[in-house]
Amino acid sequence: MADPTKSPPLTRPSVIAAHSLIKQYIHYTPVLTNQTLTDLASTPQSPSDLEDTQWAGQTPARPRIRLWFKCENLQKVGAFKVRGAFHALTRLMAEPGWEEDGGRHRGVVTHSSGNHAQALALAARTMGIPAFIVMPSISTPSKIVATKGYGAKVIHSGSTSVERERVVEEVIIETGARLIPPYDHPDIILGQGTLGIEMQEQVERMIAAGEDGWQEKCSYAGKAGGGGKRKAKGLDAIIAPCGGGGMLSGTALSCEGTGIAVFGAEPEFEGADDCKRGLEAGKRVETVRTLTIADGLRTPVGAYPWTVIHDRKLVKAMFSVTEEQIKKAMRLVMERMKMVVEPSAVVGLAVALFNEDFRRIVESEGGEEGWDLGLVISGGNVSVEAMGKMFEVSQKEIERQEAKVGQDGKELAENVAG
Amino acid sequence: MADPTKSPPLTRPSVIAAHSLIKQYIHYTPVLTNQTLTDLASTPQSPSDLEDTQWAGQTPARPRIRLWFKCENLQKVGAFKVRGAFHALTRLMAEPGWEEDGGRHRGVVTHSSGNHAQALALAARTMGIPAFIVMPSISTPSKIVATKGYGAKVIHSGSTSVERERVVEEVIIETGARLIPPYDHPDIILGQGTLGIEMQEQVERMIAAGEDGWQEKCSYAGKAGGGGKRKAKGLDAIIAPCGGGGMLSGTALSCEGTGIAVFGAEPEFEGADDCKRGLEAGKRVETVRTLTIADGLRTPVGAYPWTVIHDRKLVKAMFSVTEEQIKKAMRLVMERMKMVVEPSAVVGLAVALFNEDFRRIVESEGGEEGWDLGLVISGGNVSVEAMGKMFEVSQKEIERQEAKVGQDGKELAENVAG
Repeated sequence: MADPTKSPPLTRPSVIAAHSLIKQYIHYTPVLTNQTLTDLASTPQSPSDLEDTQWAGQTPARPRIRLWFKCENLQKVGAFKVRGAFHALTRLMAEPGWEEDGGRHRGVVTHSSGNHAQALALAARTMGIPAFIVMPSISTPSKIVATKGYGAKVIHSGSTSVERERVVEEVIIETGARLIPPYDHPDIILGQGTLGIEMQEQVERMIAAGEDGWQEKCSYAGKAGGGGKRKAKGLDAIIAPCGGGGMLSGTALSCEGTGIAVFGAEPEFEGADDCKRGLEAGKRVETVRTLTIADGLRTPVGAYPWTVIHDRKLVKAMFSVTEEQIKKAMRLVMERMKMVVEPSAVVGLAVALFNEDFRRIVESEGGEEGWDLGLVISGGNVSVEAMGKMFEVSQKEIERQEAKVGQDGKELAENVAG
Repeated sequence: MADPTKSPPLTRPSVIAAHSLIKQYIHYTPVLTNQTLTDLASTPQSPSDLEDTQWAGQTPARPRIRLWFKCENLQKVGAFKVRGAFHALTRLMAEPGWEEDGGRHRGVVTHSSGNHAQALALAARTMGIPAFIVMPSISTPSKIVATKGYGAKVIHSGSTSVERERVVEEVIIETGARLIPPYDHPDIILGQGTLGIEMQEQVERMIAAGEDGWQEKCSYAGKAGGGGKRKAKGLDAIIAPCGGGGMLSGTALSCEGTGIAVFGAEPEFEGADDCKRGLEAGKRVETVRTLTIADGLRTPVGAYPWTVIHDRKLVKAMFSVTEEQIKKAMRLVMERMKMVVEPSAVVGLAVALFNEDFRRIVESEGGEEGWDLGLVISGGNVSVEAMGKMFEVSQKEIERQEAKVGQDGKELAENVAG
């Protein structure tokens, strides 16, 4: 691992510098909009939607939200993780003595069962150096195949973090490879934050070009041009998913001093909302055992990300959502935007659509004009089988709908026949 | 139904005229490329891939193919069908006497359980006239809900074509609504063909802008610029799916006189390859009963499309693919391009990847330089439940892969430990 104390300071200019280091290696992923989802976000939930929630019986919030989706599912290897991997590797290679000490032959190592594995494999292959990836034997076979596909040497381990770290140690002793951790390192944080810089540029450009499609409905351009309260035409806020917190803290750094509020989103299932709970308690939660379907967000937030999120207060608030809300958001993105996303990628959208605490903030702070809200669609690595499993339980819902439609249809048929 | 004999002639200029009539109502959908799929298309199949096919034991073709995806899954209502619906409706409304005879109040009617239902519903709502859609009671509930969502009156019928047409007749008698058929009408054909015009423009523009990403690998730009055999930088061929044949014949018209070869793709399951069989026999196959998963392609080719495809020979050849090949192509688009597509949308890709007859044509006609091949991704309307069902049988495949990976992993682990 590169010495973290020698990393650039955790600031917005360092994120911008990271971007210039890595942009040749990554995709400048598109920012997309979707009218159906923007309309849905701007429609109050019904009282019945709130029935089984902590907001039961309360008046639903009436926020106005324009959604901007930063599509890192279309990034190389299908996830934002390449940003941090390329940045950390580039920085490691620039370390004095790395080349002379045979760093190019010794390679790099990490443990990951997820997108970081493929990201580091690709980064290492691009730079022509070997990568050793320690993956639990129980990892999804398609992820193992993909990681090998990028030329990495995959080494199996047990699935606990102790077992995985032991194997990593063995590889380091054996090969001299250097560790590139998945999130808990300043170089990784700065790399992930580059998506925030791109997103800010893109949304400003798209609004200026009239590509938001909202002028007519909201007299948006008019207001901004007419000296309204908006200081600039760009994002008001970003919601980013939070697992280890590398990407959330990087995004927060990318927004420091811009006036853009950054929020974090977590699953609440089996305590996966560790960052939210940590902020409430004023102390980082260091272990989590959850099997949330948002498998990229099962990790507790790391020490370096925590300094940005908690100590420096660069994340305004954390929100959590249920497994059902994640599935609903996933269905909407797949069926309406026709885009394949992994469950972890839509927790931010789920917050925007379903979390009344968040929606009230937008209502009160955004007012009539509302908010331009950026959502980080963090990845798209999900097999068609996994998708199928996720939605197979909804058969009952289909039948319920079928019964309902049958009835309406009959009425209409009678109307016409009469 | 507007009198088909008064439609514009079935020519490329008529398709261009149709485009100028409808372009304000539809999305100019993107053309996307994907390196992984392009590489796969340009890699010979392995002898084992061909084992259980009609090409068993033969040398696999070595075509060079650059793929260009016209993404009509991102079209309004999620499918190309809005093109024909808007064109047919616009033309009907321009018919002398339509307004005076109360056409605006009488509305339009069609029978469809698929994307044409939603397309006509949207077109009618946009024009502010009523739409009656006859749908079999057994239609997918989500499609019925969506059609109603566009403000149409849905009337249920039995599922045979006789039963459906009887209900349509009743609606016409009752309401005076005019029929807008799903594919067998010149106005529909010309409307669908507009996607071919856009695709030609887009690919030329993208190649000129260097967005094909192939210059380096193929010295493509160099060759073209250096007076090679290519006459223009654009598409060499298009493969379009064929159900009723409206879109295939429209696409063929859009390419008439351009030198771009047009091919059709069908499922072969239970005789769904009626157009291919018809061409072989020199006679249109008028009835088909198939339950191919490519549910948009279950219809036999219509009489008007047949005149373009067969009589005028504007479609160079038809190819068919198996259900398994359709599923493989669907998996590739979903997992690699991160795009949601319906099974009907990927039959063209399946031909490009798996049909050796087609691949040999590319090898022999495209030679070293290969072909720029356009694929019409015709729609993206598939529920997450349907996706799940489609891929649930592949569990065995997962286990097979799991076993294989376990073994490879062990070998690697031993390499590292040793």
